[in-house]
Amino acid sequence: MTAFATLGRRLRLGVLGGGPGSFIGPTHRAAAQLDGRFEIVAGVLSSAPARARAAAAELGFAGHASAAEMFAAGHRLDAVAIMTPNDRHLPDCLAALDAGLDVICDKPLANTLADARTIAARAAGQVFCLTHVYAGYPMLRQAAAMLAAGAIGDLRAIQVEYLQAGMSARVEDGPATPKLRWKLDPARGGPSLVLGDIGTHAFHLARMVGGRRLERLAADLGALVPGRTVDDYGAFLLGFAGGVRGTMTVSQALAGTENAITLRVFGADGHLEWTHARNNHLTCALQGRPVQILARGDADLLPPAKRLVRIARGHPEGFLEAFANLYRDAAEAIAARLTGIPADPLALGFPTAADGVEGLEFIEAALRSRAAGGGWVEV
Amino acid sequence: MTAFATLGRRLRLGVLGGGPGSFIGPTHRAAAQLDGRFEIVAGVLSSAPARARAAAAELGFAGHASAAEMFAAGHRLDAVAIMTPNDRHLPDCLAALDAGLDVICDKPLANTLADARTIAARAAGQVFCLTHVYAGYPMLRQAAAMLAAGAIGDLRAIQVEYLQAGMSARVEDGPATPKLRWKLDPARGGPSLVLGDIGTHAFHLARMVGGRRLERLAADLGALVPGRTVDDYGAFLLGFAGGVRGTMTVSQALAGTENAITLRVFGADGHLEWTHARNNHLTCALQGRPVQILARGDADLLPPAKRLVRIARGHPEGFLEAFANLYRDAAEAIAARLTGIPADPLALGFPTAADGVEGLEFIEAALRSRAAGGGWVEV
Amino acid sequence: MTAFATLGRRLRLGVLGGGPGSFIGPTHRAAAQLDGRFEIVAGVLSSAPARARAAAAELGFAGHASAAEMFAAGHRLDAVAIMTPNDRHLPDCLAALDAGLDVICDKPLANTLADARTIAARAAGQVFCLTHVYAGYPMLRQAAAMLAAGAIGDLRAIQVEYLQAGMSARVEDGPATPKLRWKLDPARGGPSLVLGDIGTHAFHLARMVGGRRLERLAADLGALVPGRTVDDYGAFLLGFAGGVRGTMTVSQALAGTENAITLRVFGADGHLEWTHARNNHLTCALQGRPVQILARGDADLLPPAKRLVRIARGHPEGFLEAFANLYRDAAEAIAARLTGIPADPLALGFPTAADGVEGLEFIEAALRSRAAGGGWVEV
Amino acid sequence: MTAFATLGRRLRLGVLGGGPGSFIGPTHRAAAQLDGRFEIVAGVLSSAPARARAAAAELGFAGHASAAEMFAAGHRLDAVAIMTPNDRHLPDCLAALDAGLDVICDKPLANTLADARTIAARAAGQVFCLTHVYAGYPMLRQAAAMLAAGAIGDLRAIQVEYLQAGMSARVEDGPATPKLRWKLDPARGGPSLVLGDIGTHAFHLARMVGGRRLERLAADLGALVPGRTVDDYGAFLLGFAGGVRGTMTVSQALAGTENAITLRVFGADGHLEWTHARNNHLTCALQGRPVQILARGDADLLPPAKRLVRIARGHPEGFLEAFANLYRDAAEAIAARLTGIPADPLALGFPTAADGVEGLEFIEAALRSRAAGGGWVEV
Repeated sequence: MTAFATLGRRLRLGVLGGGPGSFIGPTHRAAAQLDGRFEIVAGVLSSAPARARAAAAELGFAGHASAAEMFAAGHRLDAVAIMTPNDRHLPDCLAALDAGLDVICDKPLANTLADARTIAARAAGQVFCLTHVYAGYPMLRQAAAMLAAGAIGDLRAIQVEYLQAGMSARVEDGPATPKLRWKLDPARGGPSLVLGDIGTHAFHLARMVGGRRLERLAADLGALVPGRTVDDYGAFLLGFAGGVRGTMTVSQALAGTENAITLRVFGADGHLEWTHARNNHLTCALQGRPVQILARGDADLLPPAKRLVRIARGHPEGFLEAFANLYRDAAEAIAARLTGIPADPLALGFPTAADGVEGLEFIEAALRSRAAGGGWVEV
Repeated sequence: MTAFATLGRRLRLGVLGGGPGSFIGPTHRAAAQLDGRFEIVAGVLSSAPARARAAAAELGFAGHASAAEMFAAGHRLDAVAIMTPNDRHLPDCLAALDAGLDVICDKPLANTLADARTIAARAAGQVFCLTHVYAGYPMLRQAAAMLAAGAIGDLRAIQVEYLQAGMSARVEDGPATPKLRWKLDPARGGPSLVLGDIGTHAFHLARMVGGRRLERLAADLGALVPGRTVDDYGAFLLGFAGGVRGTMTVSQALAGTENAITLRVFGADGHLEWTHARNNHLTCALQGRPVQILARGDADLLPPAKRLVRIARGHPEGFLEAFANLYRDAAEAIAARLTGIPADPLALGFPTAADGVEGLEFIEAALRSRAAGGGWVEV
Repeated sequence: MTAFATLGRRLRLGVLGGGPGSFIGPTHRAAAQLDGRFEIVAGVLSSAPARARAAAAELGFAGHASAAEMFAAGHRLDAVAIMTPNDRHLPDCLAALDAGLDVICDKPLANTLADARTIAARAAGQVFCLTHVYAGYPMLRQAAAMLAAGAIGDLRAIQVEYLQAGMSARVEDGPATPKLRWKLDPARGGPSLVLGDIGTHAFHLARMVGGRRLERLAADLGALVPGRTVDDYGAFLLGFAGGVRGTMTVSQALAGTENAITLRVFGADGHLEWTHARNNHLTCALQGRPVQILARGDADLLPPAKRLVRIARGHPEGFLEAFANLYRDAAEAIAARLTGIPADPLALGFPTAADGVEGLEFIEAALRSRAAGGGWVEV
Repeated sequence: MTAFATLGRRLRLGVLGGGPGSFIGPTHRAAAQLDGRFEIVAGVLSSAPARARAAAAELGFAGHASAAEMFAAGHRLDAVAIMTPNDRHLPDCLAALDAGLDVICDKPLANTLADARTIAARAAGQVFCLTHVYAGYPMLRQAAAMLAAGAIGDLRAIQVEYLQAGMSARVEDGPATPKLRWKLDPARGGPSLVLGDIGTHAFHLARMVGGRRLERLAADLGALVPGRTVDDYGAFLLGFAGGVRGTMTVSQALAGTENAITLRVFGADGHLEWTHARNNHLTCALQGRPVQILARGDADLLPPAKRLVRIARGHPEGFLEAFANLYRDAAEAIAARLTGIPADPLALGFPTAADGVEGLEFIEAALRSRAAGGGWVEV
């Protein structure tokens, strides 16, 4: 029996951020509730008291104008989900952790490596789930498990790319939406727009599936769009532990792309490939053998993948289910802390504050490489 | 402002069927709740009182041992979702409609054309949503809207196939699960297993997207698996209104397939193709022009498709979202009936009892064709 | 050592048809010469003596105005390739066979079943290769060999389609090219345009890969384009020997298609799928196992496929190579007749006059089904 | 009228290299002859006189034991095709050019930049075609032409990869075939195995389609396979003229890959993508518009692509046709030199010695970057 089943009730969740106009707010809320393991009882959707109350009421929970107010309001919260602008992650996470609450936090963990480390240190002993959503896709877990089990032999190379188009036009010349304002402001959105927005996602995938720490990199980091002062493009040569080579390309300014993420890991005997547009499948190509297309729902998926499959093979799942998988596993971990019963070990595959620290180590190394003319730097 | 927004509260839903072990039960319940427009307040998950209560309690709502008991229990239900075995659709629908409740019912509408017509007649004036889930996929709505708008010229031919593998082995020789028992019993599962299970889905897609009534058909209906006494295969030559030709193949015994649905409509100037494995896209091939791949989330989707898009292009959606789209639209229709405010006209695209009747007309014609040696019969 | 190697010289080929403006003429000539096993020494490219000479001279061989003239001209021909209009196949084949020459003939074998049988009877003891080009694709040979070897279990169903767009507009209202003139004239092009042009191709694929004789069919045969008097569409329910079911759809009036051929064979344990647009691959889906994508060039292809592979895996081959494979095998059979040395048995997989007869049996049965209102007829 | 048509005869070709066991020899010879513009009249397939004669006789032309002997033998050669080991390109090219013959030469042009420049200088005034075969694919020419015509706006980024598996095992521990011996010997195969074998191919594609000179790069160059002393992997950050960024990955040691080449060019308004496995198509994705799949054979291809299309849309072409396209265009250029008639300008798109020099500049820069610890170097 899982810790959550033992607990015997839904977890009470407060949300910070994700107010009107947000993309990620509705996603977090739907993901939290999809499996019936969380109920959102309160939230801070605006710092203006009236708007905060109205926005929350429309969504069916209590609205507050600040985290402090919410924590003090007697909601008996079990956890807090944080989807505020990046510069708010530090204070919001610390406040939640200090209040004894477990945390589900959007990425990047923070805007600086120092802040990330501060959060990670404070999170010790509490549950901290960092929503690198792609880690919730079953077939990426399958890739990680297959590689770890030696299915393609010793790891030799990792390739990852994350390509978006949203910044291919000069959005900075158009109307400044609140979201755009904080994203384009390095003090709030972080020192490298593209790395904070999607670079840490790509890095985390390579890290999670490859299973190796990043040791060194060389960066080509900057803007593809003329005149742009924030980063919209990064290409990297990577060196992972054990002599594993890699490459990474991330950009938000590649016109015509469609949130295109592709990860490949190459071993001595074959390779695995996953691409977001076909998230329900995983390609396994062993040298000298027919290429195999594994499907979410196949009978013989490995346990870390199989348990994330919600519906039979041939019934497509997508982004929302992947996001919800993180929440479902976080629920088990939270319930374990609340009940004292050990969590299902397989539930503990979600990204944590430690992953967030590694993400910021990657960003910080990328910035150092740029500062050094693009040469190799140690991570 | 929509009728649902005017109503200002979630709809209270009772569920009939979908108890432990069911595939479709969890899907209905998740779909109903995904958008926060329904709350499930009661259900009949078993006819044994104790088990009914326990199963419902685990899911967080009140359990009853019969529809009558549930209707009498003061739940102030707005609607009932019915996912009982096929032979129960008639009494359950009638009971719900008689109780003044709106209905969301799984397919097929009934086991006979007469029963289907009875339900449809009784449903007049009430909301009746038949969950042909594939009708909830945005890119199939886009296909229907494009065809109707003349994007590929006058319709000439329709091709649809729905291929499954679940019956490719002799499941009838294995342990008889409750679900298998009723499915394999014609008195309960209906006169043609494959047509009731997936044939009406395929037919509805052709009907919805093509926009033409089926007028005639020739059927090759039977079992691929040696010794099987129920139908697991049907291939059809079709004649739609206006001289439009078509073909349909459905089977549950095609080993190695993956719930594979493909629909193509051909017009004078080009064709559209949708396939389940790439549900987020629609192929539009105009003669003499490069093939176009439209994506869910494209800026210029037509209104009936655009409104069903939940998340940005490049973030895959799947089966659950399609199912939930039907519930969301049904909620608007139900709210319209409750409030007296007209429903958003675009919300009224969900399949209804009338579609269910056409589905049974198709089945009944297919059976007549078989009885006549496979020749053409009028629908 | 093969018969061709023993022969120690190129075969001397005469060509009938394929003059200026022809699509298939250049294809035959390139295919014949690709492997250096034939040299074209003479041809009849026009019935006008001056034009016949000029056209042939431009291509580097001797031109004649009639087959009789060519046969009498002392070219020491070994074989004749026939690509004249369909109604000319009978006299041209008979003339060539009577002259003691082996024959490579374009499909369909003839315009009537009686003519086809006449050719086949006369061809006894000589080499007769019917250029169903798709039979030259290695991965279709692989499919046939895998099925025969039991790789997917007992055969249960066959699906084939061949979709073209060339007749989707009213070409009969435009300028009448010579090719169009004979194709649209039933006396010359045959009783069913679509069946003669592509129907026998599709039928042959199903027959070759499936390995079963066609026993019965029901046809929906006619024109999709309003006012058209020749057939541009045929859909079929098929019954093969041993109770194997099947479907076939062929059309030349499906706007936006791209010479799209797809063949699937379903066995008790899985299925195989080949599609023209990915001719270098073959999908093998075994129930409960990951889907496999076999590639032309894979190490463990079966002998009938492996020997047709010209270039390493990952280097695409196409239509021309498939066509040339038929010529290469025909060269071995011709050399065997000339030398008295047995041909490499694997070279004898090319389609013959007997296949041509079966193709006409299919057409004739389709016409009878139409005449009988579309019902089932025995083949 | 083209220069070749004016010439009125086939060109007489001698071949150097490509003897028994060669992969590229049969390809060159088939490509040369596919369009009937060259006849191979003599060749040097071995330096042993008897073997040279026997090997050539089997292929139907005169055999010689050295280039000098062949040039002196009175064959009235028009051109020479060179496919000897890389270190032989310099002396063979110079000998052919000195003999007044036009040259078709396999890549890389030479093993050092100095040698490459020597060849290029000597080639002035004569035809020199370097067989970067991928330049012969129509849809890559279409990509180049579209980009040049502004179809995707100003160029911003280029990505190219060329992935092979042939060296993923330790072939150096197996039997040393003649081909393997020279390839693994830097004195003969060149200073970087992977860059000579496939790196210059990938570079040329980026260069040809992107249309920009490479200005700078940073390299991660080495061996993925433990203990290997030659390069089997290279990843690059690239800087092209005009501030265009790029990446390149090439490897021969990625198990399970299939000669996989992918090129993407990104402009301000969209991007183009071509991949070898679907060589007959080109993806064009304009921001905010449905993705387009252009097909070889589409009516509105641009002239540089259209003229390379041999057969109608939907009939796949492949590697051989691409290779033959280079020969066909070289024939026009050679005929122009012979006749004094200007060549069809569109025929002059084949790679030349100047491209070969740029390829060696790329290799030389990559080696300098490695020597400098992987940092950026100017090309």
